Amino acid sequence: MNKIPRVKILVILAHPDKSSFNHAIAGTVVRALEENRHEVIYHDLYTERFSSTLTTAEIFKNFAVPRPIGKYCAELAAAEGIIIVHPNWWGQPPAILKGYIDRVFRPGVAYEFAEGDDGEGIPIGLLKARAALVFNTSNTGLEREEEVFGDPLQSIWKRSVFDLCGVKTFYRRTFGVIVTSTLEDRRSWLDEVDAVVSSYFPAVISRVRGA
Amino acid sequence: MNKIPRVKILVILAHPDKSSFNHAIAGTVVRALEENRHEVIYHDLYTERFSSTLTTAEIFKNFAVPRPIGKYCAELAAAEGIIIVHPNWWGQPPAILKGYIDRVFRPGVAYEFAEGDDGEGIPIGLLKARAALVFNTSNTGLEREEEVFGDPLQSIWKRSVFDLCGVKTFYRRTFGVIVTSTLEDRRSWLDEVDAVVSSYFPAVISRVRGA
Repeated sequence: MNKIPRVKILVILAHPDKSSFNHAIAGTVVRALEENRHEVIYHDLYTERFSSTLTTAEIFKNFAVPRPIGKYCAELAAAEGIIIVHPNWWGQPPAILKGYIDRVFRPGVAYEFAEGDDGEGIPIGLLKARAALVFNTSNTGLEREEEVFGDPLQSIWKRSVFDLCGVKTFYRRTFGVIVTSTLEDRRSWLDEVDAVVSSYFPAVISRVRGA
Repeated sequence: MNKIPRVKILVILAHPDKSSFNHAIAGTVVRALEENRHEVIYHDLYTERFSSTLTTAEIFKNFAVPRPIGKYCAELAAAEGIIIVHPNWWGQPPAILKGYIDRVFRPGVAYEFAEGDDGEGIPIGLLKARAALVFNTSNTGLEREEEVFGDPLQSIWKRSVFDLCGVKTFYRRTFGVIVTSTLEDRRSWLDEVDAVVSSYFPAVISRVRGA
């Protein structure tokens, strides 16, 4: 049996209501990772009152990143897996999470431009995470989301964010309709979250059995 | 000649740098509208330090909206035209503008659900604006934005936001690549902004000539 190493997984949650299904998903994610003995770095952006407004100074590449943004950046750069949990609000993440992208996915951290390129070229992804998972909730049916709205969250996370930053293995799942879901629906969705997390980040095997 | 009424136009800008091309676009928009004698309600979200984080209480429909959010809501509801100016950051608006959508495009203001619908159904658009224009800037070429990233801003603004809220006439233009543009490029883009604004909101004609 192959050895499965312990990895560092960054988990980001963005929902204001602690009794939300998003919190239940994030709780399940963290539990599954811990049961599998991975290292979890967990941020509930609302509880941490993440400040989402990027300032003028931050636009420039040579900006001296202050704490706590620098700490978030170091964690993102070091993450070997990334899991994001948020509701679909207007085909986009909540503003607090958009601000996390704006401020933490910085040039030099998440991507960079080749030497001699002033910013108009094709960026090189810098993230070393081997997979990114996104769990969403929605009160719009999945078919309507795709047909009527074009499901912009899929392009945003898969293409505009993770593919650009070098994370090529991507999985996304939207649960819903939340407002009309039963307790049974939600239980089976959490079982699914647990199974997906464990399939991407299986239990650590530190010694090869029988060796 | 037909009478052209004076209308109320809401202009929203989201860019941190006052020397940015976004500010030049917004300035041109406001000047064109004023020259055409329309009523302009202008918000530079960064200068106003718009607070973008939606709170738990705001999720509920019967939330007593406090000032200043209530004032933003009343202006949005009353607007007969809407013009939005922002850079393309990760295929999305900057967080401060995402927060404006999250908090100001409220149920009861921008859309509502039919009687007996608990939120899973199809919302009814409430905005009375007859047109929405979006001007974006980008450092990604337009072709690459569409082919590689799927240009999520188009779906976001046209379908997820304005169509849902009842604004069926929609125009969007992305200017770029900004970092490598010449002064001449930028001048001609501002002329284009002026022409587009005047084509959607032409000069007020209060008396029919020769009548």
